[in-house]
Order: sequence, then C-alpha cells, then structure tokens
Amino acid sequence: MLETTIAGIGPLDESAMTAARQLQARLTKPAGSLGALEELSVRLAGLAGECPPPLPAPAAVAIFAGDHGVHAQRVTPWPQEVTAQMVGNFLAGGAVVNAFARQAGASVTVIDVGVASPLPAPDPSDPIGAGDPAGAVGAAGAVGVGGAASAGGPAGTDVPRLVDAAVRRGTRDMTVTAALTRDEARAAVEVGIRIAGELVDAGAGILLTGDMGIANTTPAAALIAAFTGVDAAEATGRGTGVDDPTYQHKIEVVRAALRRHTPDPRDPLGVLAAVGGLEHAALTGLVLGAAARRVPVLLDGVIAVSAALAAAAFAPDAVGAMVAGHRSAEPGATVALRRLGLTPLIDLGLRLGEGTGALLALPVVTGAVRVLHEVATFDSAGVAEK
Amino acid sequence: MLETTIAGIGPLDESAMTAARQLQARLTKPAGSLGALEELSVRLAGLAGECPPPLPAPAAVAIFAGDHGVHAQRVTPWPQEVTAQMVGNFLAGGAVVNAFARQAGASVTVIDVGVASPLPAPDPSDPIGAGDPAGAVGAAGAVGVGGAASAGGPAGTDVPRLVDAAVRRGTRDMTVTAALTRDEARAAVEVGIRIAGELVDAGAGILLTGDMGIANTTPAAALIAAFTGVDAAEATGRGTGVDDPTYQHKIEVVRAALRRHTPDPRDPLGVLAAVGGLEHAALTGLVLGAAARRVPVLLDGVIAVSAALAAAAFAPDAVGAMVAGHRSAEPGATVALRRLGLTPLIDLGLRLGEGTGALLALPVVTGAVRVLHEVATFDSAGVAEK
Repeated sequence: MLETTIAGIGPLDESAMTAARQLQARLTKPAGSLGALEELSVRLAGLAGECPPPLPAPAAVAIFAGDHGVHAQRVTPWPQEVTAQMVGNFLAGGAVVNAFARQAGASVTVIDVGVASPLPAPDPSDPIGAGDPAGAVGAAGAVGVGGAASAGGPAGTDVPRLVDAAVRRGTRDMTVTAALTRDEARAAVEVGIRIAGELVDAGAGILLTGDMGIANTTPAAALIAAFTGVDAAEATGRGTGVDDPTYQHKIEVVRAALRRHTPDPRDPLGVLAAVGGLEHAALTGLVLGAAARRVPVLLDGVIAVSAALAAAAFAPDAVGAMVAGHRSAEPGATVALRRLGLTPLIDLGLRLGEGTGALLALPVVTGAVRVLHEVATFDSAGVAEK
Repeated sequence: MLETTIAGIGPLDESAMTAARQLQARLTKPAGSLGALEELSVRLAGLAGECPPPLPAPAAVAIFAGDHGVHAQRVTPWPQEVTAQMVGNFLAGGAVVNAFARQAGASVTVIDVGVASPLPAPDPSDPIGAGDPAGAVGAAGAVGVGGAASAGGPAGTDVPRLVDAAVRRGTRDMTVTAALTRDEARAAVEVGIRIAGELVDAGAGILLTGDMGIANTTPAAALIAAFTGVDAAEATGRGTGVDDPTYQHKIEVVRAALRRHTPDPRDPLGVLAAVGGLEHAALTGLVLGAAARRVPVLLDGVIAVSAALAAAAFAPDAVGAMVAGHRSAEPGATVALRRLGLTPLIDLGLRLGEGTGALLALPVVTGAVRVLHEVATFDSAGVAEK
C-alpha cells in the first residue's frame, strides 16, 4: 500500500495553475493585493487540477495518539498517562482542539496508533481495526466524517470518534534501540494512508493533522535533525515548556539517539523506525494519502512538519499537497518548514499541538479558495481598471 | 458627542484580566501553549470587565467610503469613479470583503461618508442620515445588524446595506488647503461613533473596520507621519501597487501636505482636518465608539491603523479595545502598529483594505475567547498535571 500510494503522487497541474493566475488578475482587486492567499489559491488549483479548485470543505482533523519509550529518559515532566487522559478529553469534547473544531465546523477523529495506557472503549459500530494490534484498517468509508453535514458551520456538535489502530502500545526507547521495527513503522504509515483515504471517501475536502503523545517533541526533533542534517540543538525545543536542565538533557537525548542509529535520510522508513513515533509515522501516511488523492493537507505544528519531512522523502511531490497551518514556537518547526519550502499562514507562538494551529489557519485556506469562486471580475461588476 | 464618547472610555478591568489569567492556567493545555491567543483572551476579559468575556459575535463590518481631493495630484492610476463602483460591488456582494464576510458570518454595512460619484440609492427603509449632508445619523438601532442571526455561520447570505451619511462629496486637496474643516472632520468622526453605537445596540459583539476610497493610502500615510513623527518616506507605501515614479511622487505629495499644515499630533481633530480623509475620520469615530461601549474593534489595514492613531490621540485607553487584525504590506501600517503597541494576528502580505484582513483574523479572536468558554480544566477532565 505504501508503494502504491507513493506511485500515485504526481506534480501540480500547470494548466490549472495558469488558469488560476489569470482568474486572480481579472477579479475586482488590485493585482497581488491578497498577498500569500493568491499563490495559495493557485497551488490548490494545481493540486485539484481545476480552476477554481473545490472549496476545502468539509474539513476533517485526524489526531493520531501514541506513546514513547524515550519518555523513560525524563525528557518531560508530564506523566505518560496524560496521553490517554487527553484522548479521553478529546472524546469528551473538552480540549482546545475540540473548541476550535466546533468553531470551524471540522470533524475530529482520534486514532490510537499506540497509546500505552488504557483508553475508553472504541465505538463498537466502527469496523476499523478495532483491537487489531497490527493496525489493519477496515473497509473504505468506515471512518465516517461525522462533521460532513455541518462542516463549515460555527457550532458543530459532532462527537469525536476513536479508532483503535494501535500498532504497538508505545514505541521503544530510541536511546537504547530502534523505536520501531521497519514493519511496525510501515504499519503505522499505512494506518495514516488508510485514514486519509477513508476520510476523503467520506467526503472530506481537506485533512488537518493532529497529534497527541507525551514526549513526542523528542522524536520530532530527532526526525527533523535526521532529515535536514541540522544539529540536535537546532531541532530541539522546550515542548510543553521544560526548564533549562531538562531542555539541555533533551538535546543530549536526541543527540544520543542520532549517534546510535545514524539514520539515512534517503531511507525514510528507516528513519521513522529508528527515531520516530507511531503518530509521526501515521501522520506521514496521512500526508502521503492526501497527496495521492490530491486533497490538501493542512499541517499543524512540529510533530506534523517532522512527519511531512518523511513524506517528502518518500515522495517529493507530496509537498504540493501540504499547506503549513502555522509556525510552532518549537525551533525545529521552522527548520522543517524552511526545508519543505513552506510559509506558514499563522505565526502566533502556539505550541499546543492537537491540530489547534491547523484549525486556526483553516479559514485562511478556505478564504483563499472562496475568492476564486465568489468574487466578481472587473467586467462583470462594471468596475474600471487603472 | 465626541467629548462624551471620549469621557466614557476607560482602562481595562484588572480583576477580570487576573481571573482570565488564572482560568488559562487551569485549562487542559501546557501553560502558555496558546501563545498570543492567551494574552488576547486576557485583554478581551479586561475590556468586557468579566471572565470569560462574551464571544465576539455577531461580527459587523463597517465599510466607510469616501473620495479624496488629493487624487488630483495623480497619486494613483485608478480613476476616482472606482470608489463608487466598488461600493456598488460591495452592495452586490461581489467584492472580496463580501466573500470573506459570508464565510465568517459577518454583516456588512457600507457607509458613504463622502463618495464623489453617484452611488446606488440607499435603502429607503433606512432612517439613518439618508441624504443628510451633515452626516446626521438617525435613531439608535437603525443600523440593523443583518447578519446577527447567522453570524458565525459560513454561508451567510445577508445583503449588505448602504447608509448615506455623507459629510461632503470628497475631501479637498490637502496639498492646496486643509482636506476638511474642523467641523467637517468632527461630523465624520461622529458618524463613526454613531454607527458603532447602533451596531452594538443591534447586537454586534465585535466591530470590524472596512474602508474604500481611491487614493486613501495617501492621507493615511500623512496621518501616520503626523501622529508618529516618522518621515513621509517611512509612512508612505505603494497602495494598490504604483510604479516607482508614482511612488516617489506620492511621498513628495505627503511631504508637501505635512509641510503646508504642520499638524499638531496633540490635536487629533486638527490633524484629521488638515491631512485626513472622511473615511479615516469616521473610522476614528468607530474605534472610539467601540471603546466607549467596551466592545472590541478589529482593525484592518493601513487606513484603519492610521485612524486608530487618531483615536488613541483622542483617548489613549481606546487602545484597549483595539485588536490588530493583520499587518498590511503598506510600511506605514507597521509604523502605526508599533506606536500603538499592537501585534497583528495575520501577516500574509495583504494590501486590499475593505476589511478583508480583519475578517481573516476574526476566527482567531473568536477562538481565543472560545477557549475560555469551552475548554475543560485539569480537574474537570481528570487530566494529571506535570
């Protein structure tokens, strides 16, 4: 499935992009006055292969949750159980991602790819990989986009759903051994590909990346250092806000893992296995799956962009489907965005994850496309040009 | 009315701000992880005088339209008639501001404070100042917030409405004489105050600034230079994108106007009269009116922030009600924002005006407040703390 997906990812459609540029020039506004939104609309036309491209709706947030063996290295003061507790919070609608998703009318799907602590029972009506530790994902369409009907509305009340697609109950400690076997990493990537396909089959017009996993900024930093070649100190941040000694220690942990595995950036599956996380690998798959279906994927923060680097290593054209939602306060996010050549839409110092930064950026993406659908031309509106 | 409004503008409520900071610390997220949104939520609590502050909804965009005598100095290649034509485009729902307002569920009110060319007939059911060249605004509540019912929804179809509150049919050429008399400037400011009051009376929870006026970045630059003391070259931008010779000429026009009038920044009415515009003066009033009602006002681009400088000169505490929607590509906008101490929420190189940048930022403001209303606390969600 991974190879088929990669083979299905192609370049942007130049003729649709040209048509979008020409349309932008005829709309009732000074040329270029919508700044970054104009080029975004052009790129989304290229992705869709038509001008105007479809409005990116309904929106579906996929939150992949997993735990991390490297937590044992005390890279964070938060207990590992918080991953499962926050999944419970997502399902109860009490987290920030829920508030932002309700506002944006986006559906929320939580996918357990490897939470160590017990979780609430998954929806029994959900045939997707329930209890299947190999992470097999069921029939296409099974991941309902619950928010489809109300997507775009401000007050969606859809209940988030939980998909059990755990590959294993947390990674191994990457400072001791590889976090995952290659087969486990592949299985997690393929969970993401399948979730992308099923959300798109259910009608989603844009996918948003979400994540939850106590300690998961540590593997994100290792992935960013491995794929870009920057030093561990440049790729590593304070995550939830660790103190100075913990931060210095965290850098050393990332450095030790990289030294142990010397991951080869030309082998993204090997990198994900050595120093990745299950949610990072699954997000890599989500990005690849979205790109293969030519649906935009709106990236959240540092976890998402570390996974996006892996996706770009698998398939460079996958970058064409990526929209950078925001610039996380984590320094590694900026390193990764620069490498990907992406400029974030929002830059407000967020460092929460969950998908919150992507959700804040969603109206900007929708607005960029809406302009191509709804704005009058100089001719049609009877407005003189300069 | 102006003096009464100014007298009614007070500082932020410290106890509500303290309560908001304490609430932010209990919510299920790492402390500070929502970046600029946290301090924004605190400030809006201080403005409302309660925690949580009300959700900033429904949203009302007020687009003030006017023409400019300085257009005769060839500061722009666009014909003056485009101001009236774009008002027609707004009323027909064909402009970018309309597309963004529909998406955000915001109502749009277009207020003619001084368009030189003939406009479509105003709504005859509207008692507000129809045809009254003194700009008298009618009974409170007369400016219906048409979008109230659907505010926040993605597909509002409310028809924008036109209010005739023209003070005069365009300003005089500020390089030759004062753009406005003090009485005219005051009348325009009071149009803005009244529109603010009526939109709030009709239920608006946040006001968004909009503007239309061919050549209006020239008086905006002069206002910014006058209020901040920077040189004309620092305050002046390319507006709709003028070429190099026009840009150099435009700087000289701004410089000539400032030299002729030497406006005193401690006399904001005098500054507005000397080098302002009718829409700039009305926006000053909108900001003051919002601040007096303790309702947030979301600033759009360079026209809005030039007016905000005037409002701050009238009443320094008015800054507490201001939220900077975006950083316009116009250099003067950055000069003004710095002086006001405001950090913009969106920075995407927009330079369209109309209210478009404010509308893009609206979901960020709403999201910041929504967090205080909807997110669970560590206690309530049973999530462990570090």
